[in-house]
Amino acid sequence: MLAVFGDAALLRAALLFEAVLAEAQVAEGLIPLEAGEAIVAACVDLPDVEDLAEAAAHAGTLAIPLVQILRERVAARHGDAVAALVHKGATSQDLADTALMLQAKAGAALIRDEAARLTQALATLARTHATTPMLGRTLLQAALPITFGLKVAGWLQGVDEARIRFDTEATAALRLQFGGAAGSLAGLDGTALVLAERLAARLDLALPATPWHAQRGAVAGLASGLAILVGVVGKIARDVSLLAQTEVAEAFEPRVEGRGGSSAMTHKRNPTGCQVALSAALRAPHLAATLLSALPQEHERGLGGWQVEGPVLADLFLLAHGALIAMAPVIEGLEVDTQRMAENLAAADVGTDTGESEALVARALAHHRRDR
Amino acid sequence: MLAVFGDAALLRAALLFEAVLAEAQVAEGLIPLEAGEAIVAACVDLPDVEDLAEAAAHAGTLAIPLVQILRERVAARHGDAVAALVHKGATSQDLADTALMLQAKAGAALIRDEAARLTQALATLARTHATTPMLGRTLLQAALPITFGLKVAGWLQGVDEARIRFDTEATAALRLQFGGAAGSLAGLDGTALVLAERLAARLDLALPATPWHAQRGAVAGLASGLAILVGVVGKIARDVSLLAQTEVAEAFEPRVEGRGGSSAMTHKRNPTGCQVALSAALRAPHLAATLLSALPQEHERGLGGWQVEGPVLADLFLLAHGALIAMAPVIEGLEVDTQRMAENLAAADVGTDTGESEALVARALAHHRRDR
Amino acid sequence: MLAVFGDAALLRAALLFEAVLAEAQVAEGLIPLEAGEAIVAACVDLPDVEDLAEAAAHAGTLAIPLVQILRERVAARHGDAVAALVHKGATSQDLADTALMLQAKAGAALIRDEAARLTQALATLARTHATTPMLGRTLLQAALPITFGLKVAGWLQGVDEARIRFDTEATAALRLQFGGAAGSLAGLDGTALVLAERLAARLDLALPATPWHAQRGAVAGLASGLAILVGVVGKIARDVSLLAQTEVAEAFEPRVEGRGGSSAMTHKRNPTGCQVALSAALRAPHLAATLLSALPQEHERGLGGWQVEGPVLADLFLLAHGALIAMAPVIEGLEVDTQRMAENLAAADVGTDTGESEALVARALAHHRRDR
Amino acid sequence: MLAVFGDAALLRAALLFEAVLAEAQVAEGLIPLEAGEAIVAACVDLPDVEDLAEAAAHAGTLAIPLVQILRERVAARHGDAVAALVHKGATSQDLADTALMLQAKAGAALIRDEAARLTQALATLARTHATTPMLGRTLLQAALPITFGLKVAGWLQGVDEARIRFDTEATAALRLQFGGAAGSLAGLDGTALVLAERLAARLDLALPATPWHAQRGAVAGLASGLAILVGVVGKIARDVSLLAQTEVAEAFEPRVEGRGGSSAMTHKRNPTGCQVALSAALRAPHLAATLLSALPQEHERGLGGWQVEGPVLADLFLLAHGALIAMAPVIEGLEVDTQRMAENLAAADVGTDTGESEALVARALAHHRRDR
Repeated sequence: MLAVFGDAALLRAALLFEAVLAEAQVAEGLIPLEAGEAIVAACVDLPDVEDLAEAAAHAGTLAIPLVQILRERVAARHGDAVAALVHKGATSQDLADTALMLQAKAGAALIRDEAARLTQALATLARTHATTPMLGRTLLQAALPITFGLKVAGWLQGVDEARIRFDTEATAALRLQFGGAAGSLAGLDGTALVLAERLAARLDLALPATPWHAQRGAVAGLASGLAILVGVVGKIARDVSLLAQTEVAEAFEPRVEGRGGSSAMTHKRNPTGCQVALSAALRAPHLAATLLSALPQEHERGLGGWQVEGPVLADLFLLAHGALIAMAPVIEGLEVDTQRMAENLAAADVGTDTGESEALVARALAHHRRDR
Repeated sequence: MLAVFGDAALLRAALLFEAVLAEAQVAEGLIPLEAGEAIVAACVDLPDVEDLAEAAAHAGTLAIPLVQILRERVAARHGDAVAALVHKGATSQDLADTALMLQAKAGAALIRDEAARLTQALATLARTHATTPMLGRTLLQAALPITFGLKVAGWLQGVDEARIRFDTEATAALRLQFGGAAGSLAGLDGTALVLAERLAARLDLALPATPWHAQRGAVAGLASGLAILVGVVGKIARDVSLLAQTEVAEAFEPRVEGRGGSSAMTHKRNPTGCQVALSAALRAPHLAATLLSALPQEHERGLGGWQVEGPVLADLFLLAHGALIAMAPVIEGLEVDTQRMAENLAAADVGTDTGESEALVARALAHHRRDR
Repeated sequence: MLAVFGDAALLRAALLFEAVLAEAQVAEGLIPLEAGEAIVAACVDLPDVEDLAEAAAHAGTLAIPLVQILRERVAARHGDAVAALVHKGATSQDLADTALMLQAKAGAALIRDEAARLTQALATLARTHATTPMLGRTLLQAALPITFGLKVAGWLQGVDEARIRFDTEATAALRLQFGGAAGSLAGLDGTALVLAERLAARLDLALPATPWHAQRGAVAGLASGLAILVGVVGKIARDVSLLAQTEVAEAFEPRVEGRGGSSAMTHKRNPTGCQVALSAALRAPHLAATLLSALPQEHERGLGGWQVEGPVLADLFLLAHGALIAMAPVIEGLEVDTQRMAENLAAADVGTDTGESEALVARALAHHRRDR
Repeated sequence: MLAVFGDAALLRAALLFEAVLAEAQVAEGLIPLEAGEAIVAACVDLPDVEDLAEAAAHAGTLAIPLVQILRERVAARHGDAVAALVHKGATSQDLADTALMLQAKAGAALIRDEAARLTQALATLARTHATTPMLGRTLLQAALPITFGLKVAGWLQGVDEARIRFDTEATAALRLQFGGAAGSLAGLDGTALVLAERLAARLDLALPATPWHAQRGAVAGLASGLAILVGVVGKIARDVSLLAQTEVAEAFEPRVEGRGGSSAMTHKRNPTGCQVALSAALRAPHLAATLLSALPQEHERGLGGWQVEGPVLADLFLLAHGALIAMAPVIEGLEVDTQRMAENLAAADVGTDTGESEALVARALAHHRRDR
């Protein structure tokens, strides 16, 4: 995920946008074939990432220095007139938003894979312990018996629902940006709408009704979807870490060589996977809220609001991915002490009736199979 | 909306839950017919709202004093044995969550109505001004010409997409809570799953796979959906208020007697509708984030996390509704100065080509018709 | 605290502002004595709270309908010319901000009292258990021995530091607002600065260098101070609730008749005080952040940003006060099971060396005495 | 600032902690002189930053792999017995927190310098334009005349107050962490309190009453102080960008070669400094709130809460510094069009009385001189 949202990946996505734009403009007869080929060729080699990052920070946008480099490359072999055709009809934000969405598409695929891995592990664990009795706890106090499978079924249901929401949001948000300087698609000789369709198809992104330079609800929706996913994974981490308490001792993260130790106490075995997920669950709500706060952007392109989205969305993808890859192995290798569960339940003196726990596990598993 | 989330409405929803629970338990043979009738009768009169609010604050939950009142009512006429059947198999949170969802269902209907009203006004406005030229502005600077219709089409698209998300989230979140003390549905003689189906059908709420006492993703999703809706309405307010600036003077809120005045300056005409929506757009992200932060709740029922949801969700519904009813009349009655738009455009000296503005308006209107 | 931030208290504070303004203007010879007396007399009776709330919502500000009522009252007995002197030189926000600060001053006094009560209880508890051995826990795992007094000393230090911050912020924020329509203090015949001094002295509020209509850092600072106070109280609640877990059982909230019960399980004793404080600690950060987000307000008075402050600040005071009055009795009456502490420590097999715990408790108590 | 919070700086701070700890332990006779010298020598060379970052991520804490490297270095020349004295009596969090505070100390110095630069520029600008008339604007509408100096005086007052708060918070927060595994300072033969004093003095950090492993109010206070500073700078950016609007045209960012251009429109001059500050002002509240949300940490060291602080605090320092260095040159080089100010004021037809603007500017400048 670090690679997906790294500077190099961003640059590659930006170059892909410029290359595909040139190809589409050739296809629509907007620029000559040779100009298109020259531009595509200029988009092959990655410019120096650090130089460009610095130039972008100075210019206030990545597009300006990047387009300048491409024009210099084209001009060197084909002259200034051809060079002027680079980025034709597009604006900085077309490039920036489309590149961000290409990164988000790659990120979403990783999230889906890891979420599927986690839910599969959860389904297996719920099935295994469908009838394992344990103490149910409410408000951090002993309540009544449940089965461990029922607890896990709740985790499963939470992640399954969050996966579905994330899929819906990603499907809506992963869209082409193409509007030109003020979103009117001017300067493209009437080919603009067809060009937009070509670009969307070629980049495998959705095509919105109008440019969304200042309509950022879909980005905020994607961010919320990620934050909720992090939150439901954090719920699992909360529970596992509480079960792993010395005095409860019902479940433990699997031992991983070199992980979870203490620099001061060699006897310790810290719930490090849970720690990662809980940290993510603390940060993610505030990152999602940042993008919600950024929604009322000014006119045809906002000042300040738009510019926060890239780094914040990247952080959210990183946290969500980090939480998933921390907790999937925890669930896959969870050490469950059913004997201790039984003892704690008996000590609480709340009877042994686990009610419909088993039937509820079956329901959650059925839903899971359906939603997969 | 104040009524929907008022204390009286909450109590009515809570009484409805207890009455419907008793009816369903009669139908399943779990309690005698006369007991059911006694309980239903006890649920007719609203207890004193303020007394109960105080008692609930002291007890830490509404259910305890409310169930006690119902039992006293039943006991007075039918004895303690029948009174003990009130709330049978249910837990405080079953009542609280189901009541909250019944309030949310009523709130969602109001939101849908007002959002539909706003989008209709936006569609009309976009159509009217599909070809009205104005200055497009990016980063608060003159950019290139657009049409006013294109700007409004963007607003429309933003609200339409947010409406769809809200619908999806509301459909998923408006669900029955019924799990009993630890979520295992114990103590119901094997009738629990059928009871749950009856309750859900009778209350017109969805039935989740398992109780969601500590799985709050759907509530967080609903909150996010509301916050995004507020944000896209706030975007409209941002733009209208910028257009209404003395020096821009292109569009104005309609005059409303007694509104938007100043206690010190009689010449002023403040954008009060925009103010309401922008205030809401400042608050809503943080309220939604509160519910995201509350996701990692402990075990079978959380301590602290669950208890924040009611008031925060109510605030979100109120803010969303307030923003919508503030901006719908603003759009319906917006005073547009097309002459001034033309002058500002000419003064900016950026040509007159509005590109594909008109075609984009048509696309947005087509999407709107489809999504309605 | 509900009364302090209720509508009636707001109205009384607003009337006090208008009365004191008239008095000061008499003293500076700006308005005649009889006009001043007429205005002061008009400020005695509270208008109908609900009517005014509705009118304020419609007008977009409380000042407009309130000033109108006062002018009607004055006009009825003294004519329109005298009535026109009501609110002379002031603007809506002068009234609203000053009234809010008067409410905040009353709120701050309550917070200081309750925080002092809590720290006193903490100091006593820390002293009592300075040498009581217990298990120290890190990352929710057994670590090394500490004393219970050391744990409590940490709580004490946290609250003491937060109290000091809150005091500093309150001292800075509780200030007069008086600037007139655009903050220039125009229309007051050169008496404006002296008037401001009189008003500040009379209302016992600080006098800032310039009007702060759109400079809201002090309000945000006050909000942050409250949120941090809530957070450190929440830390105590976190620990107490973890210690009260069935399997740990080292400390419990005192029994309060009718509190902490369960509608489904009569054996339960829920940590209801902790629940209140933890709920507050979940909400408060987001409320404080709302006021941070509102800082970049437009020009001489913001649109939307300013208007969120009143209700959000009131919520913060309510939550802080609620958390303090929930936790003070919990600490005062905490049931500590030193025997169980000793058993849990022995079971963890981490030795008995509590290091410098006792000396550290003494240090914290010394700091506490100094900071009181 | 990037360097201050970079991985290399973190490592250097961590090595400094270990070296100073060894020196202090020699001074107190806790470890032999030669062991101390060996440890100090082992702390000279920076380990490979990327390797260590990866190892820290795996272990869940930086301390474990770093201490291991130091022990290997010492062991290679002095044997395992001496190597075991590395990190004696300390815990991972002692190292991590102290290193973070050393970074924060360096960061705070940069913030103070840049804030002083900005306020100096603001004071100069306020003085220059103390009597320059312009239109005061409230709710984005023409209100009454002010002077531009009064507007700038408000900016100055906002930043001055935020600087003072930041100083107070930094003074309180920049503190040593030294408590050992459970915060009891065990295993140090009664020298612990003196050791702590030595460490604090040597590292120029404050010494709190007790270890603050799970008492994080001071960190949250520092974060809030940074966020408020960002917010008041964002307020300046909001105003400058509104004044720079094409239709207002009263003030402009200075031209900087290669900055503020557009990839599509060569005529544009974007307010890029304002954009940076406004972006920061959108993000900072949510970052500060993250640390507020993290306050209720568990027992003697939290799981998840503590671990978010480092990166979030670093982001806040970066944003605050970025906002300051973006806006200081904007204010220093602000192009003010007093002619246009006069025209806009005349067009609004609200008279020419700027009230006490000049006197208020003088007050703000006097406060500024006092607070410097």
